[in-house]
Order: sequence, then structure tokens, then C-alpha cells
Amino acid sequence: MSTYRDRLAALRAQLAEQRLDGFVVPLTDEHMSEYVGSYARRLEWLTGFQGSAGTAAVLPAAAAIFTDGRYTLQVRQQVSGDDWDYVAVPGTSVAEWLRANAPAGARIGYDPWLHTRAWVEEAAKALAGQGAELVAVETNPVDAVWPDRPQPSDATLAVQSDDLAGKSSAAKRADVADWLASQQADAAVLSALDSIAWTFNVRGADVSHTPVALAFAIVHADGTADLYVAPEKMTDAVAQHLGNAVRVLPRTAFAPALHEMRGKRVAVDPERSVAAVFDALGQGGATILAMRDPTVLPRAIKNPAETSGHRAAQARDGAVMARFLRWIEAEAPKGGLTEIAASDHLQRLREAAGAVDLSFDSISATGEHGASPHYKADADSDARIERGQLYLIDSGGQWADGTTDITRVVPVGEPTAEMCDRFTRVLKGHIAIATAVFPDGTMGAQLDSFARRPLWEAGLDFAHGVGHGVGAYLSVHEGPQRIAKPNYPGGGPMEPLRAGMILSNEPGYYKAGEYGIRIENLVLVEPREIAGAEGPMLGFETLTFAPIERDLIDTTLLTSAELSWLNTYHAEVVDRIGPALDGEDREWLIRKCARVGAAA
Amino acid sequence: MSTYRDRLAALRAQLAEQRLDGFVVPLTDEHMSEYVGSYARRLEWLTGFQGSAGTAAVLPAAAAIFTDGRYTLQVRQQVSGDDWDYVAVPGTSVAEWLRANAPAGARIGYDPWLHTRAWVEEAAKALAGQGAELVAVETNPVDAVWPDRPQPSDATLAVQSDDLAGKSSAAKRADVADWLASQQADAAVLSALDSIAWTFNVRGADVSHTPVALAFAIVHADGTADLYVAPEKMTDAVAQHLGNAVRVLPRTAFAPALHEMRGKRVAVDPERSVAAVFDALGQGGATILAMRDPTVLPRAIKNPAETSGHRAAQARDGAVMARFLRWIEAEAPKGGLTEIAASDHLQRLREAAGAVDLSFDSISATGEHGASPHYKADADSDARIERGQLYLIDSGGQWADGTTDITRVVPVGEPTAEMCDRFTRVLKGHIAIATAVFPDGTMGAQLDSFARRPLWEAGLDFAHGVGHGVGAYLSVHEGPQRIAKPNYPGGGPMEPLRAGMILSNEPGYYKAGEYGIRIENLVLVEPREIAGAEGPMLGFETLTFAPIERDLIDTTLLTSAELSWLNTYHAEVVDRIGPALDGEDREWLIRKCARVGAAA
Repeated sequence: MSTYRDRLAALRAQLAEQRLDGFVVPLTDEHMSEYVGSYARRLEWLTGFQGSAGTAAVLPAAAAIFTDGRYTLQVRQQVSGDDWDYVAVPGTSVAEWLRANAPAGARIGYDPWLHTRAWVEEAAKALAGQGAELVAVETNPVDAVWPDRPQPSDATLAVQSDDLAGKSSAAKRADVADWLASQQADAAVLSALDSIAWTFNVRGADVSHTPVALAFAIVHADGTADLYVAPEKMTDAVAQHLGNAVRVLPRTAFAPALHEMRGKRVAVDPERSVAAVFDALGQGGATILAMRDPTVLPRAIKNPAETSGHRAAQARDGAVMARFLRWIEAEAPKGGLTEIAASDHLQRLREAAGAVDLSFDSISATGEHGASPHYKADADSDARIERGQLYLIDSGGQWADGTTDITRVVPVGEPTAEMCDRFTRVLKGHIAIATAVFPDGTMGAQLDSFARRPLWEAGLDFAHGVGHGVGAYLSVHEGPQRIAKPNYPGGGPMEPLRAGMILSNEPGYYKAGEYGIRIENLVLVEPREIAGAEGPMLGFETLTFAPIERDLIDTTLLTSAELSWLNTYHAEVVDRIGPALDGEDREWLIRKCARVGAAA
Repeated sequence: MSTYRDRLAALRAQLAEQRLDGFVVPLTDEHMSEYVGSYARRLEWLTGFQGSAGTAAVLPAAAAIFTDGRYTLQVRQQVSGDDWDYVAVPGTSVAEWLRANAPAGARIGYDPWLHTRAWVEEAAKALAGQGAELVAVETNPVDAVWPDRPQPSDATLAVQSDDLAGKSSAAKRADVADWLASQQADAAVLSALDSIAWTFNVRGADVSHTPVALAFAIVHADGTADLYVAPEKMTDAVAQHLGNAVRVLPRTAFAPALHEMRGKRVAVDPERSVAAVFDALGQGGATILAMRDPTVLPRAIKNPAETSGHRAAQARDGAVMARFLRWIEAEAPKGGLTEIAASDHLQRLREAAGAVDLSFDSISATGEHGASPHYKADADSDARIERGQLYLIDSGGQWADGTTDITRVVPVGEPTAEMCDRFTRVLKGHIAIATAVFPDGTMGAQLDSFARRPLWEAGLDFAHGVGHGVGAYLSVHEGPQRIAKPNYPGGGPMEPLRAGMILSNEPGYYKAGEYGIRIENLVLVEPREIAGAEGPMLGFETLTFAPIERDLIDTTLLTSAELSWLNTYHAEVVDRIGPALDGEDREWLIRKCARVGAAA
């Protein structure tokens, strides 16, 4: 197996052959996916970096890897500083680094299937200032030097039944057609894999932990559609399900089809479709309407079948969590249990209960590892869970009727007073979100601070958002909504919350070198009837049910309203997940959910 | 006196003479001021509209007036629908209306001294789509047909002593020079009147209720400056105060000076300088650096002398308010008192106590008038204050050591339970802001919802921001900071709050047709020491002291922490403003500030 240094040298030689002075390697795929299949993990192959966000840039005499604050430590552990400069974004953008480091007149390559049009425009502008040029490559030079590059997954498609989806694909496509008519447009390009899975009521297995298939689609104004997907992924059942109004074509036919849309008005999402899609449409003579993918909002706003499915999946997932938490409580204090052993046990429990998959790699983190919000245990880091620590487990399942995501923290042995103070403040923030009532039209940005105020009062905070959207047996991170500070990148916090949206509610606290705390439930935005209300109001229905560790709660810090929320929640935990548990599991649950003391 | 119809006809005739097909009349001056001198009130002269935000556009066969939601009613009362179309912004922009209504190939005039560069670019682009052209006029055609147009004020300048300013003009200009060096710039253009007053430690009387003088300034990299101001405004004292490093030049010399900056790198604020400034610099060959006016942030961050001055001014102003509130409490129930009579009385009290001026036209509003947050009583609307109403007074003073802004509401006779419920919810929101603790770097947008949550819980809200910046014997509305929803126009809510900034804290509730409630104090951002804090934290020191009406508070809705805040606040009211009161005023104050009951 080649070393990373060999790979960088091979890429440079390949660039020279393609008459390029440099190349940019992002961490995404042709669909702007957050998680990508192994065939597309070029950044990891080239540099060793395993984080979920980053970019590399290679010049003849310099190479840099760009990561954000979450990966400051990890990039130094995984990527050699001898060959790579570490650059922090957003402090310095890739374009700025190239402008400062590329030789005058340099030709810098990029793969137009892996970047947004906005990125290309910004980078081209920055380089133009240096007399350098940004050049779209025909074939990715990393692929040319990656001998054992995996093939894209050949997993077959599966039908998501109308019962679970709550709406037929024909009806969803009719809605897209109505939208196209309102925009006087002829067609919409869908690039996002979850948009395609949702629109056609199909699921796949091409991306780890996200049940989507590699595909592109074009939906036309008459409600018919072209689905570009590898033929070997089709089954008879899927073909029958898709019907005659969906033309199934090989993925290789997608780009040529874009070239043939002359004279058509075509809607394309500039955040979800890559530059190559815009290039092909433009070259082919289509009129491009840069607009948000019309399935994004209907996908985010769950219908009654999807919310019912979510509730059922959460009940099953909560019972799994209860079994796991009881097991941890019994096993961890004995010593010897490791983070990976714990998450393996949890995975087995989920599988035994019928989960299709995990919804993401579990964060099983003990002690100081918990202080890294995105920690992932590997063979080197796998730590033993020891007395005196807090153990944090952030995990989720893909169930056919819903996607779950839950975080709980338990003490191993006796927690300190500080741990209980911090945990209780995080809980107060969690409750402040769970109980929020707000006018229709309120954005997630307007709720974020409710979760932070109890920490702020002690001079503390946490460096991540409060909540992300969650799909219905789809992506565990789903846009467009988000609860976060208003300047969180991507505009998610500025999206108005709408009844039917599902989000996580996950404030936390992290003490570097010592421990991490996060309490995460999923919540559903619901209409809220209030006597005398002057306009439509919204609130949250909590969907996730599992005990919140009573031994970490300092009840003297809770108001009577907060105590009441906690006791009501725990009573509902017993109601929802109790029926799936018996014997000692059930007794344990009832004990963990017993009422806690009087208010301060 | 001509009718508004005559004026519109005269303007159209003048446009024809200037070979223009249309003209745009904004409500601002050459300094992008919020409040403008009478010489610049072209919109009011032309249309009759007296609101504080609006624009008119005139075409040969159509004319429109553009106002936002605050003025939907008022514009219909003040401007004739026979001659003017009412257009709501931001729904339809002036540019969009012109594009839809201007004849193809039309020449639409604008005065480049009254618009930002961004407005000109946007409007020109919109019109270009119609084959129409946006044309900068040499002289404003409204002025040509406004025979009795007032002259700009000839009030003289006054020195703001270094004692009150807390920093000499030379030191402030040295800071600007340092900033210019850091930007590799040669000069900064100052157009904002409060920036100029602050930088030179002078005050004027050219704009109602704002102690500024009409002037422009250019500060150079060596700390010297050119001050463009009408010569008749100068006094020996001011000349001596300004010294040799400030060249005083007539205002007419400003535009030619901009033309003579060839080769210089000149910083200009695109939000505070008009298009004509950019045009002149560009034509003259200067390199324009579009950057925020470098005095905006230091002006917003009050120094110790300014904060001390503010505290002293607030104590005087609070004593005035106490006398007024006692008087209202005694007089209003007798019947016959009108809104204007009440605000006149308050003005006399402020003047008697030594205020230089009001800081804005008082909002003296009883009953349903209170439900218009920007209500201004005039001879037609002046209502009698009657039993059963809530009376709202929002007012402020310009004191030589500080600018005040306070709102109080009192019941006339017995308030209803609903009034008390609403008032108490507004108070809870006010306290939530007053007691907020937050990390350094937090933006006003992140605090806004704290003020709304108690209203949201009852299905209610209010349609304005929570707080605006306030100057030090300068503008009562001062940027850049603001507490408001993150999408509030102008970006103010996204400005990080910094220790030393002063803002209003003024949540409200408005019941159309019945009453309005607002509780407004000014607050100072201050560093907050918290044991164990993991970073620098900020909080608010309340600056305004006057009783908050106890008869409107439903104490059963307050938490013990809220009750404690209220009782502590009222005790401090007595401490701060009590010494200025005696006899029955003082007894009344002590009675109004007595502790209120136990928490729920």
C-alpha cells in the first residue's frame, strides 16, 4: 500500500501530465452530499484525513489541508505536517490560499462535478487577481492515480411504501409540476440524493448510514420524470413501483440530457447541484432558474404518516436505549469496558430490535473524549470507561418508519458537584427549547439562545448549534431548518420553522480534558392552540423517549416548571417505551423515571 | 399656499423642462440622516406625508408614495389617494414600481446627494431592463418649484467640552489616523452628522432634537482634518477649540475637494455617504475603499466620561419623569387633559430641569392611540385622556451630558385584568433583557427573543425591535448595534454587543383599537465577572430610573427572581432620583417604589 507521501507525489506527476499547476480536492460527491460513498473519498485517500468537512489544495511546491475549528486537533493527528500545511477556515479560504501561493499564471484544476457554481466563481475571481486561471478538468486526476479506487456501490433500490411515505411519488411529482407551472418553468433538476429518494419513494444503500442511492433526476412540468441511476440497481419491484411516468436511464445519460434542454426554463438549486450541471445546461442553451430544490420544503415538513412512523420508530429506539443504559450502568463500573465495545453492544441491540442501520457512526465517548463533540473512537483512541468519568453516547438508528438521533450521558460511579451543575444547566436549556412557544414564521435563530441562557449565567457556553433537521428514514442531518446562532453558515437558522418539521434539541457543555455533556431528543414542530392568541402559534412535541440521568440532576437548580416538565417527560417515557421492556429492564426503567424532588 | 396637487403639477412641469420623465423623492438629506432639517423635507412638502420613512416617485401619468407597515394608515390620512398610489415596501421597491410603470426609454431623474450608491445601482439595473435610464440631476427639481423653501439652519456650533466627551478631538482623530494606517489609506470621508459632531467634539442645532450641525469632513492620515461647514456657524470659541489641525472650509468646497483626491486611497462608508460622494471621488481619480465609517464603533462604545454623564443625565431625567407621572396620576382621572397638554407639561418640566432639548417628539398616546407605536399627536388627533384607558408616554431629553429615552404606561382609573396580564408579560420580557448575561461577541439578534417569550406563551408578540443604540448627547437612534430579530433590515442585530454600548430595552404589546404598552429603560453593556467563567462575559447595567407602574403588575405572574429584580430596581429608583425630589413628590415616589408582594 502506498504512503500518503507517494500519493501526493503521484498526483503532482499526474497534474504535470494534464498540464496543470495545481488541483483542489474537496470532501463531497457529485450530489453535494454530507456523507459520501467510499468511491468518492478522494480527500481521505490522498491525505489520511477522516473528518466530515475539509478540502485539500495541491500546488507544485506546496500543499494545504483546510479544516474548521472542529478538526484542529484531528487533522494534525491524521495528516502529515511534513507534506501538508494546516489552514483554518473560514479564516483563510481555499481561494485566498491559492491566490497567495499559486505561481503567477498558474493553471489550477478543479472537478466541476465536485464544486458549487458559487465556489467556482469566487475561486476564479480570486485567482484572476493573480493572473492565474481556474480550469475545469474532464477527468479527475486523483482517480487517475488511485489504483484500487472502490467502485460505486451496486446496492439495489428498495421501494418505500406509500403507507410509510404518506404520499405517492405521483402526487409528489404533481406538486413539483404545480410549482414549475407557478414559476413558468419546464423542468427541475434534482441532484440531492435525499430529494431523489423522497420524490420517488425509493431508498438505497450507496452512502453509509443514509438510505439513498446514487442518482440524478429531472422532473418535468407534466409530472413525468427522468431518473438517472445505474441499471443494475433496478429490480422488478422498483420498476413496477416507478411506473410508466418515470423514465429510468443510466447515470451516464444525465450530462448529455442537460445539454439537450435548449430553450427550456430549468430550475436548478445552486446549493445542491454542482457547477457541471449549470455548465451543461448553459452550454446546451437552456435558461437556468437558480432556485431552491422544490422538494426541500415538502420533504422537511413531515406528513401525518411520516410523523406517526417517527413516533413508532422512536418508541422502539427508546426501548433499545433503555436496555443499553441499564447495561452500561451495570457493566461500566466493573471496569474493562471500552468505548467501542459499548457502541458495538448498542449496535447489536438496535439490530436485534429491527433497525435497518445506524443513522450515523455512534459517538461513544468517555471522560475527556466526550469533550470533542464529534469524537469517533478508533482502534488507537478506544478508551476504557472508568470510574469518576462521564460516559456520553450519541447514536441513532435508521428504521423503515423513521430516523432517530439521541444523546445521553451517564456517570460511572459518583459524579462531582460540578458535573451535576453543568448537566443541570444543559438540561434547563434543553427544557427551554422543548417548552418554547413561538409565532408561526419564527426562525430557528430566534430560539437558539433559550438553550444557552442557563450556561451563560455561569459564564459557560457550547460551540455548536442547538438543533439540526432530521429526515424520515433519510438523512440524519436534513435541511433546510436549523436552530443555531443567526450567523451559522448556510442560512439554516434563518429558515422559518413550520409545523411538521423535525429537529434535534441538543444543547451541551464541554470541559476540555475532562468531560462532555449533551442531552439530545428529537422534536416535532406542531401547531399550538392558545386561548386568546392573536396569530397562529407553534411549539414542539418531543419525539424521543429515554431516561435522562437523574443522578446528574441538581434539582435545586430547577424551577417548579422545569421539574414539572422533567417528571411529566419521565412518566411519558414509561408509557411509551415501557411496554417493550419486561422483567428487570422494566423495573429499572420505572426506577429511573420516578418523580424527582421539590422545586427550589 | 399651494395645494399638494398644484405642487405635483409644478414638479411635473419642471421635470419636462429638465427633459426628465420622472423623479424620485426620498426622505433624507445629504448625510443619510434619519431626522432632517426643514430645508430638506421635500417629501413632506410635495405629498403632505409626515412619517419618518418613505419615498415618492413621480412619472408623467402616475405618482406613488412608498411606505412601510408602520405608516399604512398614516399615509392614507396625509396623502391624497386621488393623486398618489400607495405602495407598500418592502413588498414592492421603488425600482420595481418604476420598472413596471415608467414608459420604455424613460429618463428618470434622481438627486445623487440623496441616495446611496447601492440604491442607484439597483434602480439603474431595474430600469435598464425596461430600456429606461436613471439620470443624476445637477439641481433638485423639487427645489426649483418650492418657492418658500426654508434655508438650512444658521445655528452656530457649540463646543462639547473634553470633560463631557471624555476624549479630545485630537485624540479621536489620532485613532482615525491609526486606523487609516492599518488600512493603508490616506483619508476617510465622514458624512454622518453625528460622526462629525463626535469626532470634532462639537454640537449643533440644525436638525430637530439631534444636536448636530450640517457639515462634511475629511480626516487625513496625519490626524489633521478638513471640516466643511457654513462659515456663519463658526464662533471664536469653536475656532479656538478646533485648533490649527482642523481646516475649516465652506460646505460648498466639499464636492470640489473630493474631485481633487487623485491617487489617494480614500475610505468612504457606503451606508452613510451618498452616491454623489462616490461619484466625485471616482471622477477625480481617487481609489475608493468602501468601509464602515471608522468613528461608528468608537462612538457607540461610550468611554467612562460619557457613561458617567449618562448616569447623571438619567437621574435628572428620572426626577422629571417622577414629577410628570405623579402629575398625570393626579390630573388625568379628573378628565379634560389631552395628549398634547400632557406632553407640553412634560416638556416644561424637562426644560425647567435644564434639558437642552427633547431627544425626539414625545409619543403621548392614550387609549387606542397607544396601539400605534409611532403615534404623534397633532391638532386633529389630540385626544382627551379618559378613565378606563392606558396612557403611554415615550419621551426623552437631550442633556449636555447624555441623551435619554424612556417609556412608561399608567392606567387612568382602574385597569382591566387583561391590561395587567399584558403589562406584566411585557415587564417579564423587559426583566429578561435587563438580567441577561451573555458571552462577549453575542449579537443583539441573540437576545431579542428573551423579551418576547412571556408574550409568545400567551399567543402574543409585538412588531418592533427590542432595542436601538443611543448616543451621548447625540442621536437618540444611533447605530450600529440593535436588539431585534436577525432579519431586521440594516444588519444592526448582527453587530456584536460590546462593553460601553448603550441601548434601549423596550418590549411592548399593542392591542389595536384599545391600548398600547411599552416599558423602556436604557441599558449600558458592561463586563460581568462570574466565578469560573470560561470566557469574558457581558451584561447590562440599567441606566434609566423611574417607577414602573405597580398597579399594572400582576405579581402572581412573576417568578421570585423577577420580583426581586423589580424590588431592587425600585429601591434604586428612590436612591437615584429621590434626592432631587422633595415634599409630596418624594412621598409619592417612595410609595410607588415600595416592595411588591411575594412570588407565585
